[in-house]
Amino acid sequence: MFNAKSVALGAEPSAIRQLFAYGLQRKAEIGEDKVFDYSLGNPNVPSPAEVTEKLKQLTTQDPVSVHGYTPATGNPTVREQVAASLERRFGGDVTADDLFMTDGASTSVSMCFRAMVTPGATDEIIVPVPYFPEYRTWGEANGGKIVEVPSRSDNFQLDIDAIDGAINDHTAAVIINSPNNPVGVVYTKNTLEALAEVLRRASEKYCHPIYLISDEPYRELVFGDHEVSWVPDIYDDTVVCYSWSKSLSLPGERIGYVYVPKKASNAHELFTALAGAARALGFVCASATYQQVVGACADVMPDIKPYERNRARLMKILDDCGYEYIEPQGAFYLWMRALEDDAQAFSDKAKEHELLLVPSDSFGVGGWVRLGYCVAEKTIVNSEQAFHDLYNDYNK
Amino acid sequence: MFNAKSVALGAEPSAIRQLFAYGLQRKAEIGEDKVFDYSLGNPNVPSPAEVTEKLKQLTTQDPVSVHGYTPATGNPTVREQVAASLERRFGGDVTADDLFMTDGASTSVSMCFRAMVTPGATDEIIVPVPYFPEYRTWGEANGGKIVEVPSRSDNFQLDIDAIDGAINDHTAAVIINSPNNPVGVVYTKNTLEALAEVLRRASEKYCHPIYLISDEPYRELVFGDHEVSWVPDIYDDTVVCYSWSKSLSLPGERIGYVYVPKKASNAHELFTALAGAARALGFVCASATYQQVVGACADVMPDIKPYERNRARLMKILDDCGYEYIEPQGAFYLWMRALEDDAQAFSDKAKEHELLLVPSDSFGVGGWVRLGYCVAEKTIVNSEQAFHDLYNDYNK
Repeated sequence: MFNAKSVALGAEPSAIRQLFAYGLQRKAEIGEDKVFDYSLGNPNVPSPAEVTEKLKQLTTQDPVSVHGYTPATGNPTVREQVAASLERRFGGDVTADDLFMTDGASTSVSMCFRAMVTPGATDEIIVPVPYFPEYRTWGEANGGKIVEVPSRSDNFQLDIDAIDGAINDHTAAVIINSPNNPVGVVYTKNTLEALAEVLRRASEKYCHPIYLISDEPYRELVFGDHEVSWVPDIYDDTVVCYSWSKSLSLPGERIGYVYVPKKASNAHELFTALAGAARALGFVCASATYQQVVGACADVMPDIKPYERNRARLMKILDDCGYEYIEPQGAFYLWMRALEDDAQAFSDKAKEHELLLVPSDSFGVGGWVRLGYCVAEKTIVNSEQAFHDLYNDYNK
Repeated sequence: MFNAKSVALGAEPSAIRQLFAYGLQRKAEIGEDKVFDYSLGNPNVPSPAEVTEKLKQLTTQDPVSVHGYTPATGNPTVREQVAASLERRFGGDVTADDLFMTDGASTSVSMCFRAMVTPGATDEIIVPVPYFPEYRTWGEANGGKIVEVPSRSDNFQLDIDAIDGAINDHTAAVIINSPNNPVGVVYTKNTLEALAEVLRRASEKYCHPIYLISDEPYRELVFGDHEVSWVPDIYDDTVVCYSWSKSLSLPGERIGYVYVPKKASNAHELFTALAGAARALGFVCASATYQQVVGACADVMPDIKPYERNRARLMKILDDCGYEYIEPQGAFYLWMRALEDDAQAFSDKAKEHELLLVPSDSFGVGGWVRLGYCVAEKTIVNSEQAFHDLYNDYNK
């Protein structure tokens, strides 16, 4: 009687959320400090002071103008502030009209999918694996076909030849996420240039632009010498999906944007399609308050030191134990090889030591687990023995 | 190349937004006090002090817990606060598990449509006319067929026989909106009971429940002796869509809920389908901040005196001129008969007097205009001459 897909989606347990819920219950049972919950990507670093300052300031202003509707595309002043900040940081010609303020990356990506694919037309979206599982949900919900392409098994950079091989006349877009959730890898400039070359050739061959959707909520969370390239500089037909969830630690407030560079093919029509997609998805406008907050904080950079400390501490523990993992270059995830082929079984075994590690199956690949280290430092410190014990279970 | 429906939706000018944009431009040209803008439903009454107090209080709390993700269904404490408030006000058995916190009525209604209809299955949603135009957008975007049923031409109450006649085996739901946008009518208890009787009989005849979606963002804005019935008391298979946009003057913050009463048929499966629909629409959670605000303000009632004053003042002017209109019973809209059959032409004529009135065509019917009187009192006072002049254009 109801929409069967909606029922199935609603009933389908997200492995991440399920593990998180288990953790909450377990903490209630044995104490918060006894459970080592690496399940979620909820930043533990407080929002910068500028966020709270702006919120305070807004409470002193006229509520009618603070809380009123904004245009669907966003508060014009905020769009100008964000555009100016992007220009300062990345150059190019960015103006307010190129930006559509959204409810965060989820809405940004959903809008792109809905704008770019037509149900029944077998339009395809290429997704490098492993990947954020909701890409499939949003792609399929909007009538697209998700085409998985495994990344390189040695370093989890994009497998350019494999992507090239997966492109065909139905390919509408490729979506990438760098710094990457779940692996923590940052795609090198060389990798992105090679991808751009492939996409340019394929766009020419198939006589339509293949868009590159660059989903970048972790853009500012990058460690050491690694650099996050500004993708529109590398490939003209890029659409940037951004969220302040991670950079300003505002995941529950749902605020982000889609940026369509002027030089992208059919930029105006694409922007129009995004506006229509937003309407179809029931989107009215992003929170008026949080639009003003991110406008005021457009140049504020996150404090990544706590993540750097956590990362170093976690790597040290894993090294001491003998685990194999991909050294995180950005975001706040560590991708660790499970000690048996069945990642779910390994995750279950980890639970026995109160370690909550997300099995990689949810991200489209077996044999690994994701550790979200956006947690309190003491969680990592206290989990050391558990990691040793888990390792010893497999290496007696 | 793009989704043609998305492009069309994005390019389609909303008559309301178009008129509002014209008003902004016109105000810049001739001065704000010279333009009498009745186009929008953006409340001019400030949010209650409790809203600002709660916002201030949140700025003194730990940002990590204030701004973190909530479950998709909402902050558990907030859901309890809202459930308790509904129980206090309307009785019945309402618990947190019956409520799904959303980004306002737009998301609430979109979720219901997506949960209840299956693309390709010719599922129908009955919509009394005139109606909020986005019902069609959201219904069709989620694969439903919108079936328009004219309301009674004398008083714009529901035409129960016409609804009865429009129901068939494909009917999934009927959506009502009382107090009504655009007419300002409040459906009487008798009307709703007659509707319930028809729906019960039809549900039995067609062997599946026909849901009544009660979209109630104006529930608390009601004047004089008129009463807004609590629809779940009248019909078991009701789903309530609510938004605090109007009652707490928070339209730009996007906060509301869907309430599925326990006694509704297949309540649990429907709630699951709503959760799946939300995921498919790219919804993650409603703003964590504004969830906490509405939780704290669940019992706060709006100050409707400014709307009452505006309503009285506007009616006096229209009476003096000689216009025909439906006396507003709730919401903040007045439904006035155009002085010629072509509502768009009448709206254009009104523009010559700097009066911005939305032609009724956008609401599915010709011959009327909608006046949103959620404006500054002086706008109404200053518009008196313009209404006289417009009337005289047609009655020389």
